[in-house]
Amino acid sequence: MSEKLEALKSYLEKMNNYSHVGTLLYWDMRTLMPEEGFPRHQKALTAFSTEAFRMETADELYELVKALNAPEEFGALDSDWQFIVRRMLRNIEEQRRIPADFYEAFVTEQSESERAWEEAKNANDFRIFAPHLEKMIRYTEKMAGYTNPGKDPYDVMVGTYEEGMDVASMDSVFEDLKEGLIPLVREILSRGEWEDGRFYEPVSVDAQKKMQDILLRYIGFDFKRGCTGESEHPFTLNFSCHDVRVTNHFNETNAIDPMFSAIHEGGHAIFEQNVKESLDGTVGGSCSYMGVHESQSRFFENILGRNRNFWIPVYGEVQKLFPTYANISLDDFVKEINHVRASFIRTEADEVTYCLHILLRYEMEKKIFREHVSVEELPALWNRLTEEYLGITPKDDAEGILQDMHWSDGSFGYFPSYLLGSIYDGMFLEAMEEDLGNVDEILARGDIKIITAWLNEHIHRYGSTRTPKEVIENVCHKPLSAKPLLRYFERRQAIPHL
Amino acid sequence: MSEKLEALKSYLEKMNNYSHVGTLLYWDMRTLMPEEGFPRHQKALTAFSTEAFRMETADELYELVKALNAPEEFGALDSDWQFIVRRMLRNIEEQRRIPADFYEAFVTEQSESERAWEEAKNANDFRIFAPHLEKMIRYTEKMAGYTNPGKDPYDVMVGTYEEGMDVASMDSVFEDLKEGLIPLVREILSRGEWEDGRFYEPVSVDAQKKMQDILLRYIGFDFKRGCTGESEHPFTLNFSCHDVRVTNHFNETNAIDPMFSAIHEGGHAIFEQNVKESLDGTVGGSCSYMGVHESQSRFFENILGRNRNFWIPVYGEVQKLFPTYANISLDDFVKEINHVRASFIRTEADEVTYCLHILLRYEMEKKIFREHVSVEELPALWNRLTEEYLGITPKDDAEGILQDMHWSDGSFGYFPSYLLGSIYDGMFLEAMEEDLGNVDEILARGDIKIITAWLNEHIHRYGSTRTPKEVIENVCHKPLSAKPLLRYFERRQAIPHL
Repeated sequence: MSEKLEALKSYLEKMNNYSHVGTLLYWDMRTLMPEEGFPRHQKALTAFSTEAFRMETADELYELVKALNAPEEFGALDSDWQFIVRRMLRNIEEQRRIPADFYEAFVTEQSESERAWEEAKNANDFRIFAPHLEKMIRYTEKMAGYTNPGKDPYDVMVGTYEEGMDVASMDSVFEDLKEGLIPLVREILSRGEWEDGRFYEPVSVDAQKKMQDILLRYIGFDFKRGCTGESEHPFTLNFSCHDVRVTNHFNETNAIDPMFSAIHEGGHAIFEQNVKESLDGTVGGSCSYMGVHESQSRFFENILGRNRNFWIPVYGEVQKLFPTYANISLDDFVKEINHVRASFIRTEADEVTYCLHILLRYEMEKKIFREHVSVEELPALWNRLTEEYLGITPKDDAEGILQDMHWSDGSFGYFPSYLLGSIYDGMFLEAMEEDLGNVDEILARGDIKIITAWLNEHIHRYGSTRTPKEVIENVCHKPLSAKPLLRYFERRQAIPHL
Repeated sequence: MSEKLEALKSYLEKMNNYSHVGTLLYWDMRTLMPEEGFPRHQKALTAFSTEAFRMETADELYELVKALNAPEEFGALDSDWQFIVRRMLRNIEEQRRIPADFYEAFVTEQSESERAWEEAKNANDFRIFAPHLEKMIRYTEKMAGYTNPGKDPYDVMVGTYEEGMDVASMDSVFEDLKEGLIPLVREILSRGEWEDGRFYEPVSVDAQKKMQDILLRYIGFDFKRGCTGESEHPFTLNFSCHDVRVTNHFNETNAIDPMFSAIHEGGHAIFEQNVKESLDGTVGGSCSYMGVHESQSRFFENILGRNRNFWIPVYGEVQKLFPTYANISLDDFVKEINHVRASFIRTEADEVTYCLHILLRYEMEKKIFREHVSVEELPALWNRLTEEYLGITPKDDAEGILQDMHWSDGSFGYFPSYLLGSIYDGMFLEAMEEDLGNVDEILARGDIKIITAWLNEHIHRYGSTRTPKEVIENVCHKPLSAKPLLRYFERRQAIPHL
């Protein structure tokens, strides 16, 4: 191994100690830390994140990476390390272009804006949030100008969350989707509304936790490389492929959501547990593309988890653990978990209308950054689009523009990656069925592990070393298209008893 | 505030970030971390403990503390900071007298010895552990020679765990105890042996966890300043008075031990939660005297927790949560939790015979360090003393000398502090009753909070700033004596139905 590469590895080793404890502090703060533990945790987190950031952008590292990028050194690296060096070089250069005082002001405004959003949401008053949203729009635009001078800011934002993606590429795919989706949703909704109260009878949290573990094991989560926790909102967090954690949020009167959160976060976690070990602790390990990541959580949650046959091997366990489900047939359960309805809150939406919630946000972001629509006009625009896409009107901003926190910390461009994940899933499903045969049949046979193994082999092991475009090319051998997702929705919603 | 003091405070602030994440890594490793997460956690722990140790003994800190110890600076400090400066100075000087290469060899041998002990215990073969025990004896003796040159090594070891304590002081107290205890135990055991299988019917872990939380709240554990976890062996860990955590270990077929572990660890935790805030992050905050600390866990576990009246306000909850207890009367429950029997394993012993287990270990340690008895002779000596004190003979070394891990990492001198804790408790009980009146009556009234408040006020708030001797003087106004503990045992065991 070259001396330079060795030096880089030992630098990363040291740097990773800081990010490791940063991750652990974050984990603990979200899952366990008692209320009054906050200030001390926060101090340590600030100290160690600052040190990690300093090390990530330090001259010493920059010189090392530039040296490894020089032809003679670069040529001697294997392809993974070539990726790592190139990606680090780009990241460092982007980071170093951000003026320190601007970065500091940005971070300060971020936390003020997050707080204002929370206050506005609780008070159901957009005016509290408006001036902060205005600032975050300007700051984020400015940030994009620093990291990627000369490029369109919104393209930069989108590309931050989904490498290589831009408005032009998304527009054509999303337009296709919208065209097919709006009539499909209209047709499904015309079948009439219903509600089945049996699913809201109380189920003990203890039983729900047992079911969570059964589901995680069933889909392939490895408990030697992971564990579970509880938090306000479910999330997945990884230290390395050897330690990946998922959380859940339980509620006695809704046992369905935690099962699907477990399958969803389990999908994220299975991805991280199966990135090849040699990439651990580098920019190649762990997947940093939100769309690709989301495709895996949604593949497990929706494509597999809402399939009737997914439940054949485990529904008996549900009935054993949840006494109130003892007399609910598998068919009724499957009907409930595939229930499509027009609703206001994105995070509570079914998989079909969910896409419309994202299209709405994408439209909004384009209006903000491309057409410079003013902040004052945004709530009304939100409501108008909700009517257009879902046929319902939010009664207030809490049910409308104030529902998501993403914009409060400047995560513009993040929303579309959720939808890209679903679109990828449609394509992955068709590619998988070409390789493995009909997924319904595989699930009915109880062979879900061959599906997980296929995803491990074709997607997970590469971590970040394949960009989203390369993943699609290598797995699907076709250009990106929303058609497979639409075909999947039609197939799923055509099940006779629905 | 003096410039020097300000400099010390900001140094401690930085240093505490390292110990903070060290504590968190330890917590996570013992409670949650998945198996394969170990190497990465271990690396970070090593890096940050090394850095914390470096900072604790650095020249910069040493100079600062020496400057604050000079008359003009020292005189301007309040009494807490005077304690902190003096104690830090002593600690730093002790630490700095340890040669770096010796320290490294000690730490290495420590972990090898711990491993050998585990292997020996599993194989039930003392010979595997013997050479390591031999080394740990020599190393620990040598360590004492470095930190406290010219003092008797075993006195140094004892003083490490219980400040100001030495063999001479303990001998007189322990001799009194032994004299009263051996006939008392003989008398109790002569009442005849019995067993009540109803207590070993399965109880769900979920119900046990609920009962744990009820008990913790009942004795005064503050969930805004603490939380719970699960681990192989129960322990308490504190970041500061604002974040103190207890663990438990559950077992479906034994619901009693986890309740008493909760009360025991809860006692440790209530101590730490109530150290005055201004001492946080200094050597004065958190109690570093094992005997005093143990006195608090045992006060809650034994003096209060084995009192019939402690259970009056909460036994109904036990019966509600543990269906198998529905028909067990409070009197039968109290009989079970006060059951005295001769047994081999210290950690499973009742509160009365527990003292004999410690006296045995104390005798052994004196033989090792004062009479230089050889390692080969120890197992037989252990068995002979077990016969003498408890009237039973271990069938093998797993049941005898191999049962505890303390000696494997060189924690000689630690055992006596457990017994000191109980002896202090006898004295605290009498002092408390002089102040507050009969404890039985207070508990019967459901007024346990005034007992907790009394302990907070007289003991907990001072953290480490009062040495064990000062605690006894200030709380009891009497010299240390085992008589009150004996009186307590007689009172407890004289309850008619036992």
